[in-house]
Amino acid sequence: MDRPKALLDVLHGRRQAHPPVWMMRQAGRYLPEYRELRARAGSFLKLCFTPEFAAEVTLQPIRRFGFDAAIIFSDILVVPYALGQDLTFVEGEGPRLSPPMSAANLDRLSGEIDRERIAPIYETIRRSRAGLADEVTLLGFCGAPWTVATYMVAGEGTSDQAPARLMAYREPDAFQRLIDVLVDASIEYLAGQFAAGVDAVQIFDTWAGNLAPEEFLRWCVAPTQRIVAGLRARVPGAPVIGFPRGAGTNLARYVHDVPGNAVGLDWTVDLAYARDAIQPHRPVQGNLDPLALLAGGDALDRGVDAILGALANAPFIFNLGHGILPGTPIAHVERMLARVRG
Amino acid sequence: MDRPKALLDVLHGRRQAHPPVWMMRQAGRYLPEYRELRARAGSFLKLCFTPEFAAEVTLQPIRRFGFDAAIIFSDILVVPYALGQDLTFVEGEGPRLSPPMSAANLDRLSGEIDRERIAPIYETIRRSRAGLADEVTLLGFCGAPWTVATYMVAGEGTSDQAPARLMAYREPDAFQRLIDVLVDASIEYLAGQFAAGVDAVQIFDTWAGNLAPEEFLRWCVAPTQRIVAGLRARVPGAPVIGFPRGAGTNLARYVHDVPGNAVGLDWTVDLAYARDAIQPHRPVQGNLDPLALLAGGDALDRGVDAILGALANAPFIFNLGHGILPGTPIAHVERMLARVRG
Repeated sequence: MDRPKALLDVLHGRRQAHPPVWMMRQAGRYLPEYRELRARAGSFLKLCFTPEFAAEVTLQPIRRFGFDAAIIFSDILVVPYALGQDLTFVEGEGPRLSPPMSAANLDRLSGEIDRERIAPIYETIRRSRAGLADEVTLLGFCGAPWTVATYMVAGEGTSDQAPARLMAYREPDAFQRLIDVLVDASIEYLAGQFAAGVDAVQIFDTWAGNLAPEEFLRWCVAPTQRIVAGLRARVPGAPVIGFPRGAGTNLARYVHDVPGNAVGLDWTVDLAYARDAIQPHRPVQGNLDPLALLAGGDALDRGVDAILGALANAPFIFNLGHGILPGTPIAHVERMLARVRG
Repeated sequence: MDRPKALLDVLHGRRQAHPPVWMMRQAGRYLPEYRELRARAGSFLKLCFTPEFAAEVTLQPIRRFGFDAAIIFSDILVVPYALGQDLTFVEGEGPRLSPPMSAANLDRLSGEIDRERIAPIYETIRRSRAGLADEVTLLGFCGAPWTVATYMVAGEGTSDQAPARLMAYREPDAFQRLIDVLVDASIEYLAGQFAAGVDAVQIFDTWAGNLAPEEFLRWCVAPTQRIVAGLRARVPGAPVIGFPRGAGTNLARYVHDVPGNAVGLDWTVDLAYARDAIQPHRPVQGNLDPLALLAGGDALDRGVDAILGALANAPFIFNLGHGILPGTPIAHVERMLARVRG
């Protein structure tokens, strides 16, 4: 008999006596066992696209810390790669997608994801599921179309997302076509993740915070709304966590319009606002400052306590407000967990 | 007899039939006459610290566009320089402050601003005022202590403000001492600006958006509150605009706690939220996306119209949501102004 999954329970609106907990980027560089496997794989992409490695990395933080959820080790740029862009990682700098997308070369993009390119991710999911105890939730994910598009248009990461924002302003029809391709590809990709064994998915909109409000509605809210609807048409009741990082004053609108099971809060979100304006409508997940976790000590304890005090009286998943930082000491993660688990 | 200043009227809560308008960084690189003078001065700091040049740059956009306010051409890092840090600008990279401040060397910082180092700014103000028509408001400014501290601790600009955020978490008492010095220096500096002739001041908290909520209250709200109170003890009724960029869900708390005359909104602030949750309590200023101004065309027109439609029915100052971008065409500024002025 299956043991219950605490995190899935929260996604269905049921508060847990002790909030389930996981961390964004919990499989990552702060872990010595990750760094060891990363060195063996030779490259980040090799690690992502080799199911044996990726599944092992997915499971590492569960073994060490017993998190309530494992999230598959992968990258949001798998989708543009599966649509035909070349994907490389420049050591110490980050991802490169080529050619950068523009109105002129949108037609070069495939309308459908390449099953061969995506197959290793599904295999990672099957292997991860097989290695997990029943009560651990397995999370899949994708990047939201807006965030993925910022990389596709710039060809790399940017601090201000100016290339994609400018394309959206100047050539909204072409940009809409790019977003439409990403919506369809994301539905297909997430449905495939459920078929391979994930219990729920998170949609990462890492760069949602840099858009003017009308742009936010058009490029973040509407596409994510379509993904959730399209996914649920394929996978009835598929649980979805939305994470519109930096949405700020647009957060309430996101929660109102996007029909997810929970919303992830970044570390800047005011806790009283989250409790009073968001949590009555949607379970929330978050939102410890990753830098407070890195700093440790009193800053860490106070951060955890403030979040638990504000949010743990209703359906809630404890998490960071963004990915764990590479320099974070293991002992700080243990201290955080002890405090969350009471 | 003085002619009335439309912008000051708004700061005193009186809506104008046509909202007054100015732009952050309106004296800057997008203007050919600025680039010409910048080349003549030889360096950015020479431009800042030579009153003849700085006043001329302050007046350039008023002559060209007839804005309702001139803002003195200066830099927020004048204060750390006046407190004893060395200030240089590396061409194409940005400012450098040395030595970077830490708990270990805080004592090297002067507790008071050096009048000789600050004198050219006051002279710039006197010259600017003399060159302005009565109806144009002259704005002074300073950086908020939090934002200035991020540069002082890192010794340069950072994308994530991690050095200052980490110092605030790990050594809150030392960081508080740094903030206290900046609060006192800012009061002195702004009072001096009023004595030299400004009509109002803006407090720029450019990096307010990266703090966890408790940190936001301690390092952004409380120090700004103290500056406004301290300034008004010296200059009764001194009009103040606060600009906590990226405050997001913390914006309402800022407006509630900081007793300013208006609050500047960055370009991401939801307009319905601004109208319903902020404007009833405080005149607002903003918030066109500088990238929409750079893009021009339909994106610009729609952006302006949305803002006027939402905010111009109550006390309101039209502005950008952040500084104008260097590549912005002059014709786009003219188009924006024609639309705002109806």
